[in-house]
Amino acid sequence: MIVHTGDGKGKTTAALGILLRAWGRGMKVVMLQFLKHRNARFGELRAAERMGVEVIPLGDGFTWTSRDPGKNQALARAGWERCRDRILAPEGAHDVIILDELTYPLIYGWLELDEVLETLRRRPPMRHVIITGRQAPQPLLDFADLVTEMRLVKHPYSEQGIRAQPGIEF
Amino acid sequence: MIVHTGDGKGKTTAALGILLRAWGRGMKVVMLQFLKHRNARFGELRAAERMGVEVIPLGDGFTWTSRDPGKNQALARAGWERCRDRILAPEGAHDVIILDELTYPLIYGWLELDEVLETLRRRPPMRHVIITGRQAPQPLLDFADLVTEMRLVKHPYSEQGIRAQPGIEF
Repeated sequence: MIVHTGDGKGKTTAALGILLRAWGRGMKVVMLQFLKHRNARFGELRAAERMGVEVIPLGDGFTWTSRDPGKNQALARAGWERCRDRILAPEGAHDVIILDELTYPLIYGWLELDEVLETLRRRPPMRHVIITGRQAPQPLLDFADLVTEMRLVKHPYSEQGIRAQPGIEF
Repeated sequence: MIVHTGDGKGKTTAALGILLRAWGRGMKVVMLQFLKHRNARFGELRAAERMGVEVIPLGDGFTWTSRDPGKNQALARAGWERCRDRILAPEGAHDVIILDELTYPLIYGWLELDEVLETLRRRPPMRHVIITGRQAPQPLLDFADLVTEMRLVKHPYSEQGIRAQPGIEF
């Protein structure tokens, strides 16, 4: 159980690196993505398609901008149900499950952390789960086996006005 | 020009994520790996083979354990020549070049940082270079556009005695 958190680049990217390694070994990988804009996952969606790996969008930034908190909560729940199905799927169904940007619905209070932890606890043995996103809550870090914080040291957007580069950041 | 540094996991892994995204977009990617043990790259080598991406080993940990500093330096130079060929290859030959663990020969003084920086400066425009490894020297960080520090927050080897997991960490 791995968490990639922090304000730097590389949280989703390192999860994609795990996806690549696991796929290289013939393991069964699935990635479920909360919140990410369609453009912001173009490279990985295309790669996954070429590799025959499932990458499942659970709604992009636009989906989640509703001013109706009930609607966001309902969407987050629906997304989470799909994650839970995979997390609890019978042994052998998945070796690696990536829950990309899962911290956001947790931070916004659209999902209950306790329910997420309880579900993770019940997963079959040797099912690796990788969770990415800023501000991972402390109980999630406590629960994780491996936590890396991606810390922003230098960023070209803010410092040089360089825009996000296709193939590199999305 | 991107640097992934720090003592946490995820430096090479995030570079592999960039490899995956770039490959998904049909970009030309090559990864040259200093120092990494054969076992420690099994997943990525297998994946790269399946994807038709070049991943070039420049000597594993065993290669570099010589007590003869001249031998290590010669090996580092030979590895660096291969990197330089790719960095300076004609426009269109490579879109993304990953120099994995390049910081180590720099730290050990087997390579001159000035020469590395000078070579990077001369690369064709829009050739992305990603350098990974601990303790990236400050002038390299100054030269980079994007720097992420992967900070170790929690690690299962030390804390729970869990060994590195195939498909996840290698």
